[in-house]
Amino acid sequence: MKHKDFVDTGNFTKKELMDIIRLSLQLKRCVKAGYYPPLLAHKTLGMIFQQASTRTRVSFETAMEQLGGHAQYLAPGQIQLGGHETIEDTSRVLSRLCDILMARVERHKTIMDLAENATIPVINGMSDYNHPTQEMGDICTMMEHLPPGKRLEECKVVFVGDATQVCASLMFITTKLGMSFVQFGPKGFQLRPEHLAIGEKNCRESGGSCLITENEEQALKDADFVYTDVWYGLYEAELSKEERMKIFYPKYQVDEAMMKKAAPWAKFMHCLPATRGEEVTDQVIDSPCSIVFDQAENRLTAMRGLLVYFLSLREKTPQPGNIEKESRELEGLLKELK
Amino acid sequence: MKHKDFVDTGNFTKKELMDIIRLSLQLKRCVKAGYYPPLLAHKTLGMIFQQASTRTRVSFETAMEQLGGHAQYLAPGQIQLGGHETIEDTSRVLSRLCDILMARVERHKTIMDLAENATIPVINGMSDYNHPTQEMGDICTMMEHLPPGKRLEECKVVFVGDATQVCASLMFITTKLGMSFVQFGPKGFQLRPEHLAIGEKNCRESGGSCLITENEEQALKDADFVYTDVWYGLYEAELSKEERMKIFYPKYQVDEAMMKKAAPWAKFMHCLPATRGEEVTDQVIDSPCSIVFDQAENRLTAMRGLLVYFLSLREKTPQPGNIEKESRELEGLLKELK
Amino acid sequence: MKHKDFVDTGNFTKKELMDIIRLSLQLKRCVKAGYYPPLLAHKTLGMIFQQASTRTRVSFETAMEQLGGHAQYLAPGQIQLGGHETIEDTSRVLSRLCDILMARVERHKTIMDLAENATIPVINGMSDYNHPTQEMGDICTMMEHLPPGKRLEECKVVFVGDATQVCASLMFITTKLGMSFVQFGPKGFQLRPEHLAIGEKNCRESGGSCLITENEEQALKDADFVYTDVWYGLYEAELSKEERMKIFYPKYQVDEAMMKKAAPWAKFMHCLPATRGEEVTDQVIDSPCSIVFDQAENRLTAMRGLLVYFLSLREKTPQPGNIEKESRELEGLLKELK
Repeated sequence: MKHKDFVDTGNFTKKELMDIIRLSLQLKRCVKAGYYPPLLAHKTLGMIFQQASTRTRVSFETAMEQLGGHAQYLAPGQIQLGGHETIEDTSRVLSRLCDILMARVERHKTIMDLAENATIPVINGMSDYNHPTQEMGDICTMMEHLPPGKRLEECKVVFVGDATQVCASLMFITTKLGMSFVQFGPKGFQLRPEHLAIGEKNCRESGGSCLITENEEQALKDADFVYTDVWYGLYEAELSKEERMKIFYPKYQVDEAMMKKAAPWAKFMHCLPATRGEEVTDQVIDSPCSIVFDQAENRLTAMRGLLVYFLSLREKTPQPGNIEKESRELEGLLKELK
Repeated sequence: MKHKDFVDTGNFTKKELMDIIRLSLQLKRCVKAGYYPPLLAHKTLGMIFQQASTRTRVSFETAMEQLGGHAQYLAPGQIQLGGHETIEDTSRVLSRLCDILMARVERHKTIMDLAENATIPVINGMSDYNHPTQEMGDICTMMEHLPPGKRLEECKVVFVGDATQVCASLMFITTKLGMSFVQFGPKGFQLRPEHLAIGEKNCRESGGSCLITENEEQALKDADFVYTDVWYGLYEAELSKEERMKIFYPKYQVDEAMMKKAAPWAKFMHCLPATRGEEVTDQVIDSPCSIVFDQAENRLTAMRGLLVYFLSLREKTPQPGNIEKESRELEGLLKELK
Repeated sequence: MKHKDFVDTGNFTKKELMDIIRLSLQLKRCVKAGYYPPLLAHKTLGMIFQQASTRTRVSFETAMEQLGGHAQYLAPGQIQLGGHETIEDTSRVLSRLCDILMARVERHKTIMDLAENATIPVINGMSDYNHPTQEMGDICTMMEHLPPGKRLEECKVVFVGDATQVCASLMFITTKLGMSFVQFGPKGFQLRPEHLAIGEKNCRESGGSCLITENEEQALKDADFVYTDVWYGLYEAELSKEERMKIFYPKYQVDEAMMKKAAPWAKFMHCLPATRGEEVTDQVIDSPCSIVFDQAENRLTAMRGLLVYFLSLREKTPQPGNIEKESRELEGLLKELK
C-alpha cells in the first residue's frame, strides 16, 4: 500500500479504489449473513469533528463496533486543532493514543496537516474541498443498482445544482473510474477550472468523460444516475432561501419531469440531508427510483471497507511467542499483587 | 410480538409487561453472578437526546455494553429531529445505520413519529407525556421490595405531589397490572381527565383501582409504596422555588410524619434527581425505608430486559451455511489484498 | 488494598505506587506484543469532566476498550455535580450504574466528596490541587529513559516555571519515591508552604530531597529530567500573554542554553499542551532529548495499570456454579418468550 491516509481519492489508482469497493461490499455481505469478522478488535478510532454530523459520525462508530473496535467521538469544540496546541502536536499525541483517526474539518489544509503529522492512518470525513468517504459509498450504491447489462464504466452520472464538495467529489471518482460525468448547474455555481483540470486528467487515463452544462436535455439524456445536493452550503447558508430559490428554481429542481428526461431506469441519488421542496420534490425522493436510503446505508458499507483496508491490512501479525511470554509475566504479576 | 416499539405501556398486555419484568430480573441475576450473556453482541443502539439526562443515558449505555453491544450518544443539538432534515428522513437513515433507537424527546409526538417511520425498534426514553422505561424499572424495584406475604396486585402505591409525566406513568403501569394507585396532590396539579380515562379503563380490565385526592389520611392509609417527584418540571421550572413552596409546602412534602400514616412496612420511592428539602426531607430519603438507589439501579435492570426483548428476541437466527460462505470469501479477498 | 480510590498519591506507600508502575509497564508490553488481556471485560468507566480534556479523556477511553471494557464520556455540562442534585446523590446513583468512576474537577473538594460517597473506585483525573494520573505516567516515562547505570532514586528532576498542579504533583511523587526534586521558578509562583511540608515529610521517609530556588545554575546542575508546564493556568489564563512573558521570560523559558546546564544526557519533559515560544522553544521540544510524546503515550500506560489495579484486582472471582445456574434459567426464559 502506497498511501497511509485516505484524504483524496486522486491519490489512488482505479484498481486500488475498486479493491476498497470490493472489500466494502464483501464485508456488507458478511454482516448481512450475521457474520461480524473481528478485524478491528481492540482498535480505537479517534473521530475529530469541527462540524456536527449525523451520517458520517454514526457510520464510522457503527463500523468500528461491528468489527470489534471502538470509536471515540471528539465533538466540535472538545478538541482544538491549531488552537492553544498546534495541529502538529495534536496529531502526534493522538497517534500515540489511538490506532487510526478521522476528521471532518472546516478547511482542507487541516486534514492534510493532520495526515502529514500523524504516524497513524488518517481518513478525511469531509472538508470544504471534498468528501471521499461519500464517494466510496456512492460507488457501492451504484454497483448495487447498475442498469441491467451495463458495467460501471458504461454509466452516465448527472449532478444537478450547485458545485458543492459532494459535486466535486462525485466528479473526481466517476472520472477516475472511467464513467461519464455531467454537472447540470447555473454559471457561477459550476465546478471551477482547477476541479475540471483534475477531471480531464482522470478522463485521459480512464476513458471517462466530464461535462458542465446549463442545457437540461443534453445533461439528462440517457442518464443512469441523477444526483443532487442542497442548494448552497449546508453549514454556511450564505444565501437566504429566497435567494437560493431565485437562482436554482425551478430549472434545477429534480422533479418528475426532469427524471423523465433521463433513462427510463434512472435512479435518483442524494447525499442527504435533503431540503424537500427545494432541490428535490417529495414525488421524486419518495418514488421507487430513489435510492437515497441505500446510499445512507452504504456510508457504513464504505467505512467498514476503508477501516479494514487502512488499518487491518497494514497491521503486522503478532508473534505468538511474544504473546505467550507477556501473558505469562502478566499472570505472575497479577497473582503477586492480588 | 405485536409491537416493534416500546413507546407506551398502554400498547401491551399485562402478561407482556410482566414477561419483560421477568426477563429484566433474570438478566440482573445473571450479571450479579458474573455472567454477561452476549445477547446484544455487535448491535448498536442510537441514543437521541433532546434534553440532558444522567440516569437514562448511563443506564442504556451500560446495558448495551454489558450484553456485548454498543450505544452511541447523540447529544442534544448534535442531531436535529425535524430541523433541516425531516423526522421521517432521519428515522429512515438511522434505521440503516443502527439496530435499535431510543430517544428522550421534548414532545410526545416526536417519539411517535420516530417509531412510525423507523424500520428498527424504537424505545421511548421519556417524553412530556410519559416515561415508560422508568415504569418498568419501578415495577422491578417493587417486586424486589414486596411487603411480606403480599403479591404485586395487592399493593397500594401513593404518588405525592405534582402530576408530572412520572406520576402519569406510575398510574398507567400500576392500574394496568391491577394495583391500587392514588395521587395525593393539590387541585390544578392533578392528573387530567384524559389520563384518568386510561387508568379507569385499565382498572376495569385488571381489577386495580385509581384515585385522586387532597385528603392525606385517605391517600396514605395502608400504602405499601410512597412515591414522589420534583415539584414542577425538572427542565422547565416554570415556577420559582418560592411559588412552588407556596403551593406544595408543607402539605405535600414527604416527611417522617407523612410516612407514619402509611403502612409500617411502607417504602419511599423517587425517580431522582431529588430536590432535598422540597418534595422530600433528608430524614425520609436517607432512612432505611428509602429504596431510591435501588430504583436508580433498576433503570439499568429494565434497560437490559427491554433491549433483549425488543432486539434479541426478534432477531432471525443466522444460517451457518451463509456465515461459512461469506467468511471464506472474505478471507480470500483479504489474502489477495494484503 | 487499603484505598478504594486513587485521589492523591500521598495516600499510598512507595511500594504500592511502584507496584502500579510495574503493572502499567507490563500491560504496555502486552499490548505492544499484540496481546490485549480482557481484564476489564464488561466493565464500565463513568468519566465526568468539568473541564475539556484531550489526553486524559482519550487515554482513559482507549485503556478501557483495549482491555475489554467501555468508558462513558460525561461531557462538561452533561452531568451536574452539586447542582440540582447533590454530589452525594450523584455519587450513589453512578455507583449503581457503573463499575468505576473518574472525574476531572474544578475544585479538589469535589473529587474528595465523590470518592467518599461513591461505593465504587474513583480516580482523580486532575483537580486544581493535583494530577496524580499524570504523576504515574511520568514515572513510567522516566523508568523508560533512566540515565545509563542510574536507578530512579538517584535521579534529579527539575521543574521550571510556575507552580501549577502538575508541578505540585511532580514534587509529590518524586519526593515520595526518594528522588531529588527542584522547582526553579520566580517568587510568587513557587510551591506553597503546605506543599513543601508534604514534600519534606516524604523526603524524611524516602531519603529524597526537595528544593525551591531562583538560581538557575544550582537548579539545573546534574539534572536528569527538565520538566515544564504552561505559564499560568491552562484553563483560566488570568494573565495576558504580555504579563506572563514579563514574569517568566526569558529566565524561565526552557531553551537550548538552559538544557546545556543540565546533565549531558538530560531529557526534556512537558505534560502538554505546550505553548511553543513561551515556556519552551521549538528547538528543545523538537530535539532528540525531548520525550514529551512518550509522556503522552504513557498517560495511556498509566491508565491501564490504574484501572486494572483498582478494578480487576479487587473483583471477587465469580462462582462457576452460579453462572451455570443463571445461564440455564435465562436460556429457558428466552426460549419461552421467543
